[in-house]
Amino acid sequence: MIEVDIGVGKQARVGYNLRDITILPSRRTRDISDVDISWQLEGYNFNFPIITSPMDSLMSPDTAVCFGSFGGLGVLDLEGLWVRHKNLADIFEQISVMTPDQASEKIKQLYLEPVKEELIVEAIETIAAANQVACGAVSPKNVASMTKIAVDAGLDILFIHGLVVSAEHLSSSANPLDLSSFVRKLDIPVILGGCASYQSALHLMRTGASAVSVGVGPGSTSRSGDYLGIDIPQATAIADVVGARTRHLEETGFYVQVIAEGGMRTGGDIAKAIACGADAVMSGSLFSRAKESPCKNFYFGSSLQHDDIPRGVLSEVKNDLSLREIIFGPVARNDGRSNLTGVLKRSMAMCGAQNVRELQKAELVVNMSKPPTY
Amino acid sequence: MIEVDIGVGKQARVGYNLRDITILPSRRTRDISDVDISWQLEGYNFNFPIITSPMDSLMSPDTAVCFGSFGGLGVLDLEGLWVRHKNLADIFEQISVMTPDQASEKIKQLYLEPVKEELIVEAIETIAAANQVACGAVSPKNVASMTKIAVDAGLDILFIHGLVVSAEHLSSSANPLDLSSFVRKLDIPVILGGCASYQSALHLMRTGASAVSVGVGPGSTSRSGDYLGIDIPQATAIADVVGARTRHLEETGFYVQVIAEGGMRTGGDIAKAIACGADAVMSGSLFSRAKESPCKNFYFGSSLQHDDIPRGVLSEVKNDLSLREIIFGPVARNDGRSNLTGVLKRSMAMCGAQNVRELQKAELVVNMSKPPTY
Amino acid sequence: MIEVDIGVGKQARVGYNLRDITILPSRRTRDISDVDISWQLEGYNFNFPIITSPMDSLMSPDTAVCFGSFGGLGVLDLEGLWVRHKNLADIFEQISVMTPDQASEKIKQLYLEPVKEELIVEAIETIAAANQVACGAVSPKNVASMTKIAVDAGLDILFIHGLVVSAEHLSSSANPLDLSSFVRKLDIPVILGGCASYQSALHLMRTGASAVSVGVGPGSTSRSGDYLGIDIPQATAIADVVGARTRHLEETGFYVQVIAEGGMRTGGDIAKAIACGADAVMSGSLFSRAKESPCKNFYFGSSLQHDDIPRGVLSEVKNDLSLREIIFGPVARNDGRSNLTGVLKRSMAMCGAQNVRELQKAELVVNMSKPPTY
Amino acid sequence: MIEVDIGVGKQARVGYNLRDITILPSRRTRDISDVDISWQLEGYNFNFPIITSPMDSLMSPDTAVCFGSFGGLGVLDLEGLWVRHKNLADIFEQISVMTPDQASEKIKQLYLEPVKEELIVEAIETIAAANQVACGAVSPKNVASMTKIAVDAGLDILFIHGLVVSAEHLSSSANPLDLSSFVRKLDIPVILGGCASYQSALHLMRTGASAVSVGVGPGSTSRSGDYLGIDIPQATAIADVVGARTRHLEETGFYVQVIAEGGMRTGGDIAKAIACGADAVMSGSLFSRAKESPCKNFYFGSSLQHDDIPRGVLSEVKNDLSLREIIFGPVARNDGRSNLTGVLKRSMAMCGAQNVRELQKAELVVNMSKPPTY
Repeated sequence: MIEVDIGVGKQARVGYNLRDITILPSRRTRDISDVDISWQLEGYNFNFPIITSPMDSLMSPDTAVCFGSFGGLGVLDLEGLWVRHKNLADIFEQISVMTPDQASEKIKQLYLEPVKEELIVEAIETIAAANQVACGAVSPKNVASMTKIAVDAGLDILFIHGLVVSAEHLSSSANPLDLSSFVRKLDIPVILGGCASYQSALHLMRTGASAVSVGVGPGSTSRSGDYLGIDIPQATAIADVVGARTRHLEETGFYVQVIAEGGMRTGGDIAKAIACGADAVMSGSLFSRAKESPCKNFYFGSSLQHDDIPRGVLSEVKNDLSLREIIFGPVARNDGRSNLTGVLKRSMAMCGAQNVRELQKAELVVNMSKPPTY
Repeated sequence: MIEVDIGVGKQARVGYNLRDITILPSRRTRDISDVDISWQLEGYNFNFPIITSPMDSLMSPDTAVCFGSFGGLGVLDLEGLWVRHKNLADIFEQISVMTPDQASEKIKQLYLEPVKEELIVEAIETIAAANQVACGAVSPKNVASMTKIAVDAGLDILFIHGLVVSAEHLSSSANPLDLSSFVRKLDIPVILGGCASYQSALHLMRTGASAVSVGVGPGSTSRSGDYLGIDIPQATAIADVVGARTRHLEETGFYVQVIAEGGMRTGGDIAKAIACGADAVMSGSLFSRAKESPCKNFYFGSSLQHDDIPRGVLSEVKNDLSLREIIFGPVARNDGRSNLTGVLKRSMAMCGAQNVRELQKAELVVNMSKPPTY
Repeated sequence: MIEVDIGVGKQARVGYNLRDITILPSRRTRDISDVDISWQLEGYNFNFPIITSPMDSLMSPDTAVCFGSFGGLGVLDLEGLWVRHKNLADIFEQISVMTPDQASEKIKQLYLEPVKEELIVEAIETIAAANQVACGAVSPKNVASMTKIAVDAGLDILFIHGLVVSAEHLSSSANPLDLSSFVRKLDIPVILGGCASYQSALHLMRTGASAVSVGVGPGSTSRSGDYLGIDIPQATAIADVVGARTRHLEETGFYVQVIAEGGMRTGGDIAKAIACGADAVMSGSLFSRAKESPCKNFYFGSSLQHDDIPRGVLSEVKNDLSLREIIFGPVARNDGRSNLTGVLKRSMAMCGAQNVRELQKAELVVNMSKPPTY
Repeated sequence: MIEVDIGVGKQARVGYNLRDITILPSRRTRDISDVDISWQLEGYNFNFPIITSPMDSLMSPDTAVCFGSFGGLGVLDLEGLWVRHKNLADIFEQISVMTPDQASEKIKQLYLEPVKEELIVEAIETIAAANQVACGAVSPKNVASMTKIAVDAGLDILFIHGLVVSAEHLSSSANPLDLSSFVRKLDIPVILGGCASYQSALHLMRTGASAVSVGVGPGSTSRSGDYLGIDIPQATAIADVVGARTRHLEETGFYVQVIAEGGMRTGGDIAKAIACGADAVMSGSLFSRAKESPCKNFYFGSSLQHDDIPRGVLSEVKNDLSLREIIFGPVARNDGRSNLTGVLKRSMAMCGAQNVRELQKAELVVNMSKPPTY
């Protein structure tokens, strides 16, 4: 690791974002038709290694089913608005025509309604009934109380999710969840995250999680850098966690999936995240333009709700492409944000990579050029 | 320290700004309710480690009392307009409706009026009468003549303040103040600064100062880089001074407080400054939007007055939040510039830091990415 | 090579673009009249080392003749629109007055028409009849089937061309072309590319190619970085391929020409590319403003046609200079994009370089300065 | 020197611009009244180390006298418009009201008029008659033929000036001037430049020049980077030439003055150039706003005239300050571009530097931060 001196009394490591790197084509190329981009998480098979972020504006039970039907993994926020309001689709329709400020205010109010168990059950059953993989996100704080309901309702994969999730939470008042014993007792696979460093990831892996999500701050709606001073460059975060995975594999023989969460702005960034060593990526913004989005014109995550320390913003979007177009093309806009699977395959073909595991071994080049001015 | 060759005949060190770094969350997290952000300077206790800059547009005797009542430390400029004009509040009301050019011109005229001893006494007594800590800033040039009056009036903490303050000022005409013997003879704690390097800070510490302020040029109204070629990257300046503090501690057993002065643009920057090793931060711009500001619509410091070599500018501001909102929230604007104490606590909780001293040990990442273009 | 750690689990090399470097004048200068910028490829002599990209909007059989008559090498796309449509000049006239979106759509339709053998023959014969060097570009996929026709029609130089061309293409279904035996059997010189790394280039050189073109993504109409995550910094790509050329020369005694393809935005960039070690450059954008361009107002390459994974865009241009002015001046616009040969000569004179081979040895300086803000 | 690999086949050094560095205040400060900024060149004494560039739009015989009367050194272009046109002041008055394009065209025509010996004589005599130091710039090509006239007319200092001047010019047709014997035979001091590297400067110094000017491309009207690929980062160029000066001093015992030419945009940059080791700076742009400028509203140098390879542009300016204000203040605009001598003194006072030679030893910090975005 490259350490630099900030000054006499402090050192730091150098970190890189996905936009700072590029994949170097290898001396072999490959037929695009021979490229395999499928992904497996424990028993579950997916057609492509792209997961949607658990954001209420994107993922309703219905859009999770739709995304799953294409072969991807959609994640529902089990503490989000879909499990707080029965008639959310109608409310979102009203919000769609508001100004951003009005919408933001209204959405914060919606979060004041408590989570309802019956809506959790209903949401999971909707996904299960459609024969799709039901994956739900819960914060560490509530995971102990909410998991049983969700699992009983048919949850297939549990995502214990927060801006920063650690294996060792310290509290003087409450008795913090022992993640390790909790995860090991569960019968379903667990994804844990976010995290952004070797040590954090290693300890999350040691809880027995099937996958770890990497990313603190890189998402397009996140403002954690400005607000909290915490915004880890995503390429470095991925590569650090991949390093932890290797060590964990050496120690235990168990290969933990690494999911790059946030910071992918184009299809090219998906390829870069995998070339850093990720097995799959999780994105909200790449799907924010979907016509299927339940909250038209707006894109936001649950971090919008925090009134004391906002860490996220509401963005305006134009819902101009179907999920199918985003995932499989054809390309309608010339912006690198549609036909994501085709783009990934093409990138792999140019590197001679037959599958995701081979793309993980691609060579990288760091390019810190200033933008062109002429 | 990383030295680079500028060319065959000159070397330089590499420096970093707060915006170039980010805090890396540790493998532990902590309950936000367990986080302690209090700060002590000699006998004085403060609820949070944030000090206001001695700028006339922000700190009147009244706003110093108000800021103190929340548990912070407000610093009055003892050579500023509040001790030159008895009716400054009225004058500021007139200035509030001027154009920036008119305001700038008018303010420069106000500085032509000499400092009045009785106004110094009155200002300090106002703060003391409200049972708040009275802290005042004086330039090295005037500190010998003005200190006795201020101390007699009840000054609690003396801030010997300039763009660059050195322990060894050379003069062929005057007999420069021997800072070391002056500080040691005083009965009240002294803050000395600004400085921006290991050697400067070490010599300031050896005068017996209780605290040293770090920062030459990073403030938002400062133009010392363009005008003087002197604008030290603040993260490096802090870390260098922290290095000097460690050496001074080893040599003397005395822990000098390091106060990061200027360059904090959001709450996240406060956390970063502390993670570089500072004990507290001093900011003007973070409070420039306060509704309590005595000079509405404008923000400026005393550097505005210098006609031959201006080093500062007057900025227009919108006074849209109360001091309480800025310090304690709730968050009204989504810009990382309100609820500063909540933000600091949250950042520390994510790093598992129980108090400021633990945040000082957080790991840092340098990130020189170009801004995103897609 | 400078390797940096992206993180624990991944390393990368550092790469530079042409805009990141500058040529350092040597301690000798030279009369501009003594500077020789001629270039040779196998038996063919050219007045200057600048080749046009095989883009339909620039290179028709007629403009290839025109460019050749000035002493340069124009390359025709042998799978492009000029060999699909007999009346393309008329169609381009209609397109010239369309909106960019209409034009883009229309051009994509034009690519649906199949390539016609008789038009290939006709195009090559047009160039040959004008006594110019006929050079045509074919993709690796079609080179086996199309080359005989072209060679029989009088093709002088074959450019086997793609975004990334490798010496070892892997396919489970088709039997990929063995480039090595194909190239060695041909009686005419072959240019192979693009490529962007030492290993790729070395293997291309080992096929017996006369020249290798370097550049994956740097062209002004390319979007391969955003779409595919592949956009190799051009100065580094050139220098790597030049390194491979040296090794190949040591191994075989044969000097393979290195052609820098794309990323030249001004005449200064041509000099920089050669100073990185290239023998010649290939550019489309530098000629996009030519009055002789067959498709007025628009500039595009064949990558525009790909509907599933677009890697290129259509740009609007103003056709304001003749090819002669672009190549030989006089300078009409103050933008560094005319009198390209004069500029190259002047740059070489300032470095004391008598010919291209001497400019290749010029010293370079990397300059990563942020743009000036004051 | 820090060498980086551009790629396998090419290395480069890292270079820095003045805007990339900042001066670090030392542990001593000094009274501004004790700071001495005078500068000596051979027998001549100047009040401040700032020279004007030989640009026709700035330096007429009259403005050279005016600048000299303040204690500076103004340089006249002895091949410029003032020695081609007797009535240039009138012509410039007409140009002042033209559009930039008209002005540019008109000025190029003016350069077609040949240089007139009687105007050279008249110009030098005007300066000498006013008891100011007469310094004139001549290109290497014409220096042999023009110098005698100028010296006979009373020229005090000869500036042999070009974008790049080398001690060894190679020519097959002409017999290039042997700079070394030419300079040694002259009875007046010679300034030679520009140059931008250790080797070039060392060879220029060995000709016996009194001073060497450093700078290839940094000037605000220069476009040599875009046009020629040659634009040397000025801080590195200065430091390299300063290194050559040290070696030359060791070899010969003679201290050659180093003049930083171009790239100073504010007073702070003057201090930075000296802190890199320069003895004096030469600037055009800092004086382009002078009310005394003979060509109101426009700013240009002789490089504008080259029709085949333009290397310079004409800029529009607002002539809003007198030369006196620019040099001595008071400050009228808050942009760091007036009171240049006061600014330099203040900067030196903050570094404890008593004179220019002490400022040359100041510590530097490199700061490559991206611009603030929040």
